[in-house]
Amino acid sequence: MSNRTESYLVGLVGDGVMPSLTPPMHEREGDVQGLRYLYRPIDLLELGLSGDAVGDLLKSARSLGFNGLNITHPCKQLVLQHLDEVSPDALRLGAVNTVVIEDGRFIGHNTDFSGFAAALASGLPGARLDRVVQLGAGGAGSAVAYALLTAGVKTLDLVDTDAARCAARAAELAGFFPDRTITPRTTAELPQLMPLADGLVHCTPVGMAAHPGVPLDLDLLESRHWVADIVYRPIETELVLGARAKGCEVLDGGRMAVGQAADSFRIFTGLEANADRMRGHFLELVAQEEVAA
Amino acid sequence: MSNRTESYLVGLVGDGVMPSLTPPMHEREGDVQGLRYLYRPIDLLELGLSGDAVGDLLKSARSLGFNGLNITHPCKQLVLQHLDEVSPDALRLGAVNTVVIEDGRFIGHNTDFSGFAAALASGLPGARLDRVVQLGAGGAGSAVAYALLTAGVKTLDLVDTDAARCAARAAELAGFFPDRTITPRTTAELPQLMPLADGLVHCTPVGMAAHPGVPLDLDLLESRHWVADIVYRPIETELVLGARAKGCEVLDGGRMAVGQAADSFRIFTGLEANADRMRGHFLELVAQEEVAA
Repeated sequence: MSNRTESYLVGLVGDGVMPSLTPPMHEREGDVQGLRYLYRPIDLLELGLSGDAVGDLLKSARSLGFNGLNITHPCKQLVLQHLDEVSPDALRLGAVNTVVIEDGRFIGHNTDFSGFAAALASGLPGARLDRVVQLGAGGAGSAVAYALLTAGVKTLDLVDTDAARCAARAAELAGFFPDRTITPRTTAELPQLMPLADGLVHCTPVGMAAHPGVPLDLDLLESRHWVADIVYRPIETELVLGARAKGCEVLDGGRMAVGQAADSFRIFTGLEANADRMRGHFLELVAQEEVAA
Repeated sequence: MSNRTESYLVGLVGDGVMPSLTPPMHEREGDVQGLRYLYRPIDLLELGLSGDAVGDLLKSARSLGFNGLNITHPCKQLVLQHLDEVSPDALRLGAVNTVVIEDGRFIGHNTDFSGFAAALASGLPGARLDRVVQLGAGGAGSAVAYALLTAGVKTLDLVDTDAARCAARAAELAGFFPDRTITPRTTAELPQLMPLADGLVHCTPVGMAAHPGVPLDLDLLESRHWVADIVYRPIETELVLGARAKGCEVLDGGRMAVGQAADSFRIFTGLEANADRMRGHFLELVAQEEVAA
């Protein structure tokens, strides 16, 4: 009688989420699959709410018939205390970006991690993963590092301008992956590290419209390196362009954005998303945005 | 960037609303108009909430990006205190069934009244409206009586088994329409009243699946009478069938249900609904239901 079984209502809670491309990506994939799919951005800044409101928003969403919520900054940790169940990976990461509401229960997942893992597998198939340098050990960086280690990286050099955070993160990851070598590093060490690395992953804001530039000296890149960026606005960051000019295989930031969206879609609906199709939609959306800007 | 301008999220708050046909009616009309439209039933009984929760639900709906809510029993009066603005007709009726959320403000309307008025105009065009007998003076009955008087009924005989309620309602309506004759009556007076009436309007639960039967002696109907029922489950009530057998022109309860839905759709979206098309959808939905039952 109701449409609950065939329609999906989803939201994205966080600061400044109005321009997010995740809602239209989900909606278009839902359209192609013949679902009634509506995805609302729920912007804490617009609502004048702090991250602590996430618990009340979850309860409201349950009452009003939402199937789930994506969660972003500043709520990925704050949401944990409100959940009935958390996936083992999200629990280890201490961060949830996807909450599905099932029979009134809140179940948390982390598709930043799984989305990057999927992006790496599909966008850089066969890439050597013995030794990787990662720039940036913040929230997104944690999920990416976890994905890299899960994918089989043996030696991870973690670089962050915040040495204490970098050391803490490396120690934490070493606890989860005791048979790997995870070392906190500094930018000054990059000239020694890059010649040893198979690839480079970039997880800082450098290269975003508000933070132009490159996160490392491009002369350190060799054509045998693969390079993954998680910045996707613009999709062609200076790092992506520079790496490509050097002949490197490149994974742009859109791959991770699409990967996390595809995984969230599957968690919300129980239906597989077609990540290639979502990637196509995503690139269209980015192109529209760049024309409009 | 967001889809707010082209997508609509609506809910229906009340007791036992899960089987309501209003959500699928809105969604199908939205589909035909090329809108992304999702309409969720929000059942207070399922949520274990009383009618007093309507204020909190309104605020939650605003935070989560709803465009509006339909409101039904037991919240049509309770909602009034939470609104920023109320249409003059809804204010007079003391009942709101449609709240649109505009720029964060809650604006109340009553489309039970306007929907019946539209149904009467389209379903019984040219009907004589000088004198009408109305059975039932409860919440829906109040809206219908108000619509009848607005449509030009000069003499309204209001019948209800609760004499005090009937008298109070008649007095209230007389205050709004001082140039009309509105009289509280009893069932015993029907044999005297029906010969004077142009038409009969039925606003009690009699004829619903749970309350089978007819609300008056069908021998009192003459072929010159028109008969309007607001019961729509089943669509062919014993009253509707009996009146048709007598040769009366008949307005079934689906007309009002569609009328209120079409008006709410317009209030939520700013776009005209096609009431004939919605009527077609509605009849399909009822037929599916009757096959399933």
